[in-house]
Amino acid sequence: MYKLYDFLPSGNSYKVRLLLTQLQIPFTRIEVNILNNESRTPEFLAKNPNGKIPVLEISPHQYLAESNAILFYLSQNTSYFPDNHFEQAQVMQWLFFEQYSHEPNIATSRYWISILGKEREYKQALEQKQVLGYAALNVMENHLKKQDFFVGKTYTIADIALYAYTHVAEEGGFNLTKFPAIQAWLKRNEIFLD
Amino acid sequence: MYKLYDFLPSGNSYKVRLLLTQLQIPFTRIEVNILNNESRTPEFLAKNPNGKIPVLEISPHQYLAESNAILFYLSQNTSYFPDNHFEQAQVMQWLFFEQYSHEPNIATSRYWISILGKEREYKQALEQKQVLGYAALNVMENHLKKQDFFVGKTYTIADIALYAYTHVAEEGGFNLTKFPAIQAWLKRNEIFLD
Repeated sequence: MYKLYDFLPSGNSYKVRLLLTQLQIPFTRIEVNILNNESRTPEFLAKNPNGKIPVLEISPHQYLAESNAILFYLSQNTSYFPDNHFEQAQVMQWLFFEQYSHEPNIATSRYWISILGKEREYKQALEQKQVLGYAALNVMENHLKKQDFFVGKTYTIADIALYAYTHVAEEGGFNLTKFPAIQAWLKRNEIFLD
Repeated sequence: MYKLYDFLPSGNSYKVRLLLTQLQIPFTRIEVNILNNESRTPEFLAKNPNGKIPVLEISPHQYLAESNAILFYLSQNTSYFPDNHFEQAQVMQWLFFEQYSHEPNIATSRYWISILGKEREYKQALEQKQVLGYAALNVMENHLKKQDFFVGKTYTIADIALYAYTHVAEEGGFNLTKFPAIQAWLKRNEIFLD
């Protein structure tokens, strides 16, 4: 059985739990409290030398890190990853957008404000993250005005990856009321949560 | 024929040019000078709403953004992407490592120092990027002590993605003399450059 080393408040961990649950794949969850530096112990670094959760233990001593690489791995040959070659690449495009333009701004703001409770301490850095985070939300909004899901006509791991931190963006100080297409897409995602 | 919208000094663009050249795929290059905001014009934003280079035009009105998604697309069914399912996911793991832990520190430092020439202006931010950039180099060094290439036993797009900014890391103020395994790997990569 898969073992998932993760941290409950992490959106990156949430992505993997969501897909495993949707695919009805059983797994054991092992909590790694990153606030206590539990992802920096020698034992954990042997699993992921980059010291980050989530990590999927596929079999003993076979580990996979990076949430979006785990989504890629688990979704192969399922409806969550397209068959079409160009659409597969479009999924990857949105996964890299998520990790480069979305997560470092929206997730990091949420981490500082709602998980660490240090909004004042990070005031200046948060201002820049607001600008870049809203820019990412605008890219999503304009795309979702034209289509129901990020790639093709169906729900894929691109939606899962972007849903994770977007649906809690308000915990990072982002106001979604000006993004009707994102809000409608969030609702469409909820259908898949049950 | 493919059209590549790119900017010569960009390592993200370099990755794509390198793979296209290695695969002997002809392409037309269109220079987009990001220093003149040419990636923010309405014409360019119609190609990539996220306003970043490189962008691959696969056919008229069919665009793919995000350098590592382009590498994924071009490498399918070639020796640069493994056949094995787990090794494919490991390639993805290193591509996400590159975009999250490596590029934002090493490439951004190089951009500020060597492309913008604003080392003094960014002094404080550069200090943090040095710490995180060296942490990424340490992860690479420890991995390359054990194997010749990042995934499996052969050269893949994981090596191309990480080569792009590592081989010019000194332009970002990173000293590679303490990383012998990285240096040996850089030399192994050069074999594929001709």
